[in-house]
Amino acid sequence: MLHAPGDIRLEQVPDPRILAPTDAIVRVTASCVCGSDLWPYRGVSKVSEPRRIGHEFVGVVEEVGEDVHDIAAGQFVIAPFTWSDNTCPHCRAGVHTACANGGGWGSPDRDGQMVDGGQGEVVRVPLADGTLVATPEHPDEAMLPSLMALSDVMGTGWHAATSAGVRPGHTVVVVGDGAVGLCGVLAATRMGAERVVAMSRHESRQAVAREFGATDVVAERGEEGIATIMELTDGVGADAVLECVGTGDSMAQAFGCARPGATVGFVGVPHGVEVPIRDMFGRNVHLAGGVAPVRHYLEQLRDDVLAGEIDPGRVFDLTLPLAQVADAYTAMDERRAIKVLLKP
Amino acid sequence: MLHAPGDIRLEQVPDPRILAPTDAIVRVTASCVCGSDLWPYRGVSKVSEPRRIGHEFVGVVEEVGEDVHDIAAGQFVIAPFTWSDNTCPHCRAGVHTACANGGGWGSPDRDGQMVDGGQGEVVRVPLADGTLVATPEHPDEAMLPSLMALSDVMGTGWHAATSAGVRPGHTVVVVGDGAVGLCGVLAATRMGAERVVAMSRHESRQAVAREFGATDVVAERGEEGIATIMELTDGVGADAVLECVGTGDSMAQAFGCARPGATVGFVGVPHGVEVPIRDMFGRNVHLAGGVAPVRHYLEQLRDDVLAGEIDPGRVFDLTLPLAQVADAYTAMDERRAIKVLLKP
Repeated sequence: MLHAPGDIRLEQVPDPRILAPTDAIVRVTASCVCGSDLWPYRGVSKVSEPRRIGHEFVGVVEEVGEDVHDIAAGQFVIAPFTWSDNTCPHCRAGVHTACANGGGWGSPDRDGQMVDGGQGEVVRVPLADGTLVATPEHPDEAMLPSLMALSDVMGTGWHAATSAGVRPGHTVVVVGDGAVGLCGVLAATRMGAERVVAMSRHESRQAVAREFGATDVVAERGEEGIATIMELTDGVGADAVLECVGTGDSMAQAFGCARPGATVGFVGVPHGVEVPIRDMFGRNVHLAGGVAPVRHYLEQLRDDVLAGEIDPGRVFDLTLPLAQVADAYTAMDERRAIKVLLKP
Repeated sequence: MLHAPGDIRLEQVPDPRILAPTDAIVRVTASCVCGSDLWPYRGVSKVSEPRRIGHEFVGVVEEVGEDVHDIAAGQFVIAPFTWSDNTCPHCRAGVHTACANGGGWGSPDRDGQMVDGGQGEVVRVPLADGTLVATPEHPDEAMLPSLMALSDVMGTGWHAATSAGVRPGHTVVVVGDGAVGLCGVLAATRMGAERVVAMSRHESRQAVAREFGATDVVAERGEEGIATIMELTDGVGADAVLECVGTGDSMAQAFGCARPGATVGFVGVPHGVEVPIRDMFGRNVHLAGGVAPVRHYLEQLRDDVLAGEIDPGRVFDLTLPLAQVADAYTAMDERRAIKVLLKP
């Protein structure tokens, strides 16, 4: 429960139960802390009353409502960071985050019933058939972090690369070295980019970026960073840029690195961003992306993880028991950890 | 020559001659007045000294420099609204408006030599091989307006539709009923859109929009217009939106009509536009487009015109001799004409 900025506590709450025939109850195997959980934790987003938190989890289905047909008790499932029906026009168009009947963990469902947060032991999942994606078998313990990463960060990095139009042979610049930025590097590599430039000044993150396929690392930021990218690309600029931060500075840096005709794929929640519309117009630099429809990519990424093609779980550099959730937030807040995995 | 806001005059200027071996001299068969010519004419853009104006023309090549190989004297040619080498990395990527060696009519070339405006009798064309596109034969008089439209408005409407990602079966909304917006309707139709909604309150323009394939016309603007589009699309919104005006109001209207995951293709020069970045993020609505690389589309559109597949020349509803250029500007300024064709 998040009580106030900086005040997160493990508390006993009532076990959830099936409330609608489309619900499922999932016992959490692992959850984790997201960079975006830090907005309310830091008081940037308002915390008006104690509330459940966490929107990433994997687990085992304990029970399903009578209208659930594709998901069954006993299955290991991955939950994307929003729930959705997977049948409305927006879901069918691949934009599950705009689902006509969807919503987010830790907030009320369409019947006004509160849905549990992901950082817990058991979660009621609305619209279980549309939301959850099962694995064929229960995965090995070693596979757990990479499947956990599909709940948000890997799907979000993938969305940045998809939105930016990454194609084989491209030179791709990734702005942001958080878990999402690193997953963006992995996504661009997987999509066949020839050159992937990670903009990072943190040694441990640079190391993960290189493991994920970054061919170059640029430590400079702002104008200096842009100048370095221009040098690396013979004055042309990048074919695609992934903006994985969401600040005005990072967006300006992203546009500065983009070649004419390129797309900036953005997935960082925008805070104080001004879009350089005249530059976009003059150079035909496009802006695409938004809150990632992780569900849309989930089957494909699950298969890639199970086949050993990608290992996004490498972004977890700290694992703690749920009882130490407060330490997990502190480690993320102080940037001592890239991303913390929580085991109930 | 544009002397000052509202003061445009036909004046005798020296005949151009070949200055660089890559130049060609073209005798103008037809030119025209563009909506963007009205920015300086109205004093919105500064006019510091009398200058040549006009960036759209077709004509016959009179002479070429010794390094011109693909264009020959006697050919009928279409000039896109910027000149470009067609070989630099940006041209090869299809963004001719960002050509490393390009520029605009009525402004200096890379050697500092002034290039003629298109509203005249004879024009020196820099980088003739990269810039001009010839027709196989001299076209009939009846074909002239449609070829003339390829200099800017049809290529610009096409760019809006391309940028917005129009595909067969789409529902497309076009904001703006100027010549570019109307060409956007024609482009969306040609690309196989199932439903093309022209937002227009002018009867004469509505008529052209319908000729160009508009299936629906919406006269309302702003919130009212958006509500009508939502009704027409069962609350979903448009698959692609073409923004062909460039004001804050038109951009807001365009975003309001876009469904989640859609792209707003914008080609109106932005004036006072604020990009709704939080809405873009939350609904995954993308923004693509910019100053149209008409040269990139010119061969294809020329072939479409010559094959009778498209007839963008319908946007010209007034033809005047060059001597009456001042009347042409007045007619455009007062919106008495959609677009005026000028014959020297």
